[in-house]
Amino acid sequence: MNLAPVTRPIRVALDAMGGDSAPMVEVQGAIQAARELNGTLRIVLVGDEERIYRHLDRAEAEELGISVEHAAEYVSSSESAAFSFRRKQGSSIVVATQLLRRGKAEAVVSSGNTGAVVTSALLTLGRIPGIQRPAIAVIVPTRTGHTILLDAGANSDSKANHLYQYAVMGGVYAHEIFQVPEPRVGLLNIGEEDSKGSEVAVQAYKLLSEARPHLNFIGNVEGRDILKGTADIVVCDGFTGNVILKFAESVVGMFMQTVRREMETNLKFRVGALLLKPVFRRLKSKLNYEEYGGAPLLGVNGVCVISHGSSSPLAIKNAIRVAAESSRKKVNNQIKEELDRERPERQVLG
Amino acid sequence: MNLAPVTRPIRVALDAMGGDSAPMVEVQGAIQAARELNGTLRIVLVGDEERIYRHLDRAEAEELGISVEHAAEYVSSSESAAFSFRRKQGSSIVVATQLLRRGKAEAVVSSGNTGAVVTSALLTLGRIPGIQRPAIAVIVPTRTGHTILLDAGANSDSKANHLYQYAVMGGVYAHEIFQVPEPRVGLLNIGEEDSKGSEVAVQAYKLLSEARPHLNFIGNVEGRDILKGTADIVVCDGFTGNVILKFAESVVGMFMQTVRREMETNLKFRVGALLLKPVFRRLKSKLNYEEYGGAPLLGVNGVCVISHGSSSPLAIKNAIRVAAESSRKKVNNQIKEELDRERPERQVLG
Repeated sequence: MNLAPVTRPIRVALDAMGGDSAPMVEVQGAIQAARELNGTLRIVLVGDEERIYRHLDRAEAEELGISVEHAAEYVSSSESAAFSFRRKQGSSIVVATQLLRRGKAEAVVSSGNTGAVVTSALLTLGRIPGIQRPAIAVIVPTRTGHTILLDAGANSDSKANHLYQYAVMGGVYAHEIFQVPEPRVGLLNIGEEDSKGSEVAVQAYKLLSEARPHLNFIGNVEGRDILKGTADIVVCDGFTGNVILKFAESVVGMFMQTVRREMETNLKFRVGALLLKPVFRRLKSKLNYEEYGGAPLLGVNGVCVISHGSSSPLAIKNAIRVAAESSRKKVNNQIKEELDRERPERQVLG
Repeated sequence: MNLAPVTRPIRVALDAMGGDSAPMVEVQGAIQAARELNGTLRIVLVGDEERIYRHLDRAEAEELGISVEHAAEYVSSSESAAFSFRRKQGSSIVVATQLLRRGKAEAVVSSGNTGAVVTSALLTLGRIPGIQRPAIAVIVPTRTGHTILLDAGANSDSKANHLYQYAVMGGVYAHEIFQVPEPRVGLLNIGEEDSKGSEVAVQAYKLLSEARPHLNFIGNVEGRDILKGTADIVVCDGFTGNVILKFAESVVGMFMQTVRREMETNLKFRVGALLLKPVFRRLKSKLNYEEYGGAPLLGVNGVCVISHGSSSPLAIKNAIRVAAESSRKKVNNQIKEELDRERPERQVLG
């Protein structure tokens, strides 16, 4: 006799005031997620109750297991994060992370000010024991699939041991969420030889090598290797990671703009561009890493997923799905176990 | 009565053994440059005499002012740079830089192993007095023109004062070579506020601010601003600069590969891609920064231009042209003067 395991629905606190078109897009994303994952999910929309209910039918919400937690304020995308947290205890992102702390939710999703999300999560939830720095892990599309790049900007400076811990966290995430059996870890560097790179990179190379074979460290990878899919996880400091991702976004924009401008000069080009429209659309969505369900903030003591400010309802839905899955798969527990498996002295290094 | 100024021809030492198709492409590039800039230029091809003359007609060479300096060895692209310099005193890149040192040439151009070029130039020519670190300046195409990004990888770690000096050097180059009246300097960072970023970036922000209005510092720029042309000069550490440039090269490759793959699935796409072929070609050459004449290694005491290993004869010709122009415009003297104009204490900071 097979007994299906009894699974309690995962409660996801969604910061409804974060994105550029908040709360409309958040409400739509929540409805999509609730419909698709009905029965396994409860969504708590956090934000201005009145504005949220302008986009949400009360009866439908109840039926879908969506509730609303009022928050009077929100953090705008231009505010300084440190400032916001101190002054804005009543903001949607702080209220949302507090739901986790108070045991009222298992995961939080926000498409708000990244700095404010990181600060709120870190100060409200704390870190996973042993983790020195949380990191934003971004899913980057590659020629063959996708790569997890971290840190994408949670920290401006990273030490060697932070990079090592990013590798451990990224490895658990790739394994649990993307079912990669032995995720290949690459260290982003400016040359392939082990002696190459910044002081931090040289030290990190050593730490990562020592963690073999437990960690499947494949060595240094260069900027050109990221999109090749050479590694399942690419670790780098948050400064470099942030710059690359923002640069990557702008490359697509420049490309599309050039094609559009050329279209106007010549009928032949216009016809060509029309015929290739589906290809361009696919390319754009391929390079649009938000479609992969948002960027998990790994290392905080609770599940937190950051989606882009310009997220579509689909992107919000995907972020909710990934957040619920991270909670169900106990990604944070596994990160802790992986760290404990390593020699304890590693945790005080770097 | 107008007297034309008497200009002595500039002697450019060209490492003929550097590129992927050496010495053929180098010889072709040298011939193009000599033809185009006849009378103002003397080119010395440095490398295996016998192999060079397989591609070069002796009579034509003499007529064009091209001579050959024999070098028995060369540094392959896979060799470690430090190792090469010690062991390979007879290599084409070392012999070429020694021509400058011995007063037999005013500028050197190489499309060889970047590490070997930087090491040879630095150890043979030394630094411009006051400059702490030389930097590779790469010309990046933008929506509106181009931006000089430096350092693109001459150094793996950069201190605040190095970044400040990169700004000074980039400013002189933009002014002299690209005729930009008051070049806008941006500091690559992960946020726009002045308190943002790594420790080094925060300190560099301060140094650059203090150099106003002499230096036209416009503040922090983010990854997405590089291609927008927000700044004429973008300064960053060599680690970040190198990673971005290598990443950028691979984006174009990924884009083209995707279009090619899609073409095979559908006749409509194939026709569209054929119609758009000239646009794709222009895009590719636009994003191919080598067309802009190579990357000057700024800060060494002599003109040194690095071109890509896969350079075409056109790229070699452009690199020769830029090298000659840098020598004629006395870019290095001007860098020294700019540094001296600044308060001397800045030079011991950072």
